[in-house]
Amino acid sequence: MSIRIAVDLGGTHIRAAAFRREEKHPLKHKKIKTRSGDESIFGRLLHLIEEVIPAGETLEAIGIAAPGPLNPRTGIIIETPNIQEWKHFPITEKLKLHFGCPVYLGNDADLAALGEWQYGAGQGHEDLLYLTISTGVGGGVISGGNLVQGREGLASELGHVTVQAGGEVCSCGKRGHLEAYASGTAIANYVEDQLKDSSTKSSLRSSTSRTAETIAVAARGGDSLAIAAFNRAGKYLGIGVASFLHIFNPSIVIFGGGVSESGDLLFTPFNASLRAHIFNPAYLKNLTITTAALGDDAGLLGALALVEMRSKD
Amino acid sequence: MSIRIAVDLGGTHIRAAAFRREEKHPLKHKKIKTRSGDESIFGRLLHLIEEVIPAGETLEAIGIAAPGPLNPRTGIIIETPNIQEWKHFPITEKLKLHFGCPVYLGNDADLAALGEWQYGAGQGHEDLLYLTISTGVGGGVISGGNLVQGREGLASELGHVTVQAGGEVCSCGKRGHLEAYASGTAIANYVEDQLKDSSTKSSLRSSTSRTAETIAVAARGGDSLAIAAFNRAGKYLGIGVASFLHIFNPSIVIFGGGVSESGDLLFTPFNASLRAHIFNPAYLKNLTITTAALGDDAGLLGALALVEMRSKD
Repeated sequence: MSIRIAVDLGGTHIRAAAFRREEKHPLKHKKIKTRSGDESIFGRLLHLIEEVIPAGETLEAIGIAAPGPLNPRTGIIIETPNIQEWKHFPITEKLKLHFGCPVYLGNDADLAALGEWQYGAGQGHEDLLYLTISTGVGGGVISGGNLVQGREGLASELGHVTVQAGGEVCSCGKRGHLEAYASGTAIANYVEDQLKDSSTKSSLRSSTSRTAETIAVAARGGDSLAIAAFNRAGKYLGIGVASFLHIFNPSIVIFGGGVSESGDLLFTPFNASLRAHIFNPAYLKNLTITTAALGDDAGLLGALALVEMRSKD
Repeated sequence: MSIRIAVDLGGTHIRAAAFRREEKHPLKHKKIKTRSGDESIFGRLLHLIEEVIPAGETLEAIGIAAPGPLNPRTGIIIETPNIQEWKHFPITEKLKLHFGCPVYLGNDADLAALGEWQYGAGQGHEDLLYLTISTGVGGGVISGGNLVQGREGLASELGHVTVQAGGEVCSCGKRGHLEAYASGTAIANYVEDQLKDSSTKSSLRSSTSRTAETIAVAARGGDSLAIAAFNRAGKYLGIGVASFLHIFNPSIVIFGGGVSESGDLLFTPFNASLRAHIFNPAYLKNLTITTAALGDDAGLLGALALVEMRSKD
C-alpha cells in the first residue's frame, strides 16, 4: 500500500511522519534538530524522510509545512528562519527528483488552518478563520471550502493589516498593523514603553525577562501595567477580527499560538472589543470562537491535509 | 433552445435581459422604473421578466443582482434601498414558484466582481479584488477562482474594515472604517468639516452643492481644499488596498463606482500611498490596477455570471 509523508520544517526542529491514506495517526514519526554541526540540512532532511518510510511501502506524495516567505505555486522557499543557506530554494523540485513522487509546499499558518479544518477544531466548517498569536500574528483562511492563497501564495497575512494608520511600528517596518498591537512582541513593547516613565508602578520593573509570558504571570498577580498591556492587545485583536468577519463572514474563528493560551487575560477584552466593533450582529450569529486543537501537530497534520487537498486537484 | 434571465434590481431602475448560453449580448433587454404608482413591485417584476422572454423559448434559470443586505444562500432579501415593502422577502422562492426554474440571488458588489471576472476587466484572472467607490465603499473578491461569500453571504464588506481605530464615524455608525475616509460621502464630509473653520479659503464655500463630483471640479480648478480632500481619500484608499493585497494577494484590482471616475485626483495619491504601505514589493509584482469595464451593465452581467457559476455547482 502507498503512504504519504508530512514534514514540518521548523526553525528549531524538523519533524517527519508517514501516514496511510485517510488516517491521521502516523505509522512512523521522527524529529531531529534543524541545525546540527556542519552537515547539510537538505541531506539530513532526505535521511529523515527515508527513515520514516516503512519498509516495503510506496511513496504517494510528500507535503511540507514551512515558515514563509515561500511560494506554494512554484514550491520555492524564498527564505526561512534559521536556515540561512536556503535562499530561493526549490525544495519541492529537489525532493521530487530524489523520491520520484509529487511534493507540495505550504506556509505554516495556512497549513495550520488547513490542519485544524481537516483534523482539528474546524471540522465541518466551510468558512474558517485561523489566527496564530505568538511573537507575531499570522493567519490562514478557508473560504467556501477553499484555502485562500492568492496568486503567489502570499495571502492571509492577517498580522500585516492596518488597524491604526500611522500607529505603532510593526516588525515588518510599516506602521499600525495588527501585529504591532496584538502580538506577544507588542505586549512586551508596550510594557517597556510604559516603564520609561519612571512614575509607572509595576512589579515588572524589577523583572529581568519581560515577555508576554512573564507579563501574563504579573497580570494574574494583579499588576495593573501587565493587565493594561493585555487589555490593549485584546482591544486591537477585537478590532482586527471584526474587520476579518466583515471580510470573510466565517462560521468559526480558531486561535493558535502561545499568546492565545493566556486565556481570559486576552479574551475578555477581545470579546468586548469584537462585540463593540462588529457593524451588524449577523456576523456573530452562530459564530464559534475557539482555540486550536492540534497543538504541536498543527504543522504535520497541515502538511498531510495539503497532500489530501492537492491530490484532489 | 433554453435561455437565461438576468435581473438588476436597483433603487431607481429594474433591468431584465434574456441571454443564450455562453453569450453576453442579450436577445432582449428592458428597463423599468423601480417605483411607479401604487402597483406592486413584485407584480411589475414578473411582468418585466415575462416581457424579455423571447417567444417559444424555455427558461433555464434566473439570476438576480440586488443591493444588500441579503442572503444568497437562502435567497432572501433582508432589506433593499427604495423598496421598503420587501423585508425578509423570499424573492428566489417566489420567482421559482412562478417560473418553475432555478433562481439565484447575489449582492450587487459581489456580482459586479463576478461580472468583471467573467465578461469585463478581470477576464483570465483567478484572484481578483473589486472595489466600488461611490456614496459608500463596497467590495467583491474572487480567490483562487471562487467568489468569496462567507457562511451567510455577508463577506467582502471591504468598506467596513477599520483603518483608523477610533477615527471618523462611518455611515454604519462604527468608527474608523475605510468607507469613512475614502467614499464620496467621506470626501464631502471632510470639506464640510474644514469649512467650519472660517479661515479656510476655498471656492467651495460659495457652492450650493458640495458633493464628490463638484469637489472634483473644484480640485481640477486648483482649489486647495478640494485637492486636500481627494489626497486624503486616496491616502486611506492606499492603506486599505495594501491591507487587502496582504489578505488576498490578487493579480488584479478593479475599481468601479462614480468616485473612481475622478482619475488622477484620486489615483495619484492612492498609488503613492499603496506603494508606501505594502510590506513586501512582491504583492505589487505583475499586479494590474484598472477600472471596471462593464459600467451600467455590471449588475446584469454579474447576475448572468451568477447563473453560469451556480449552474456548475
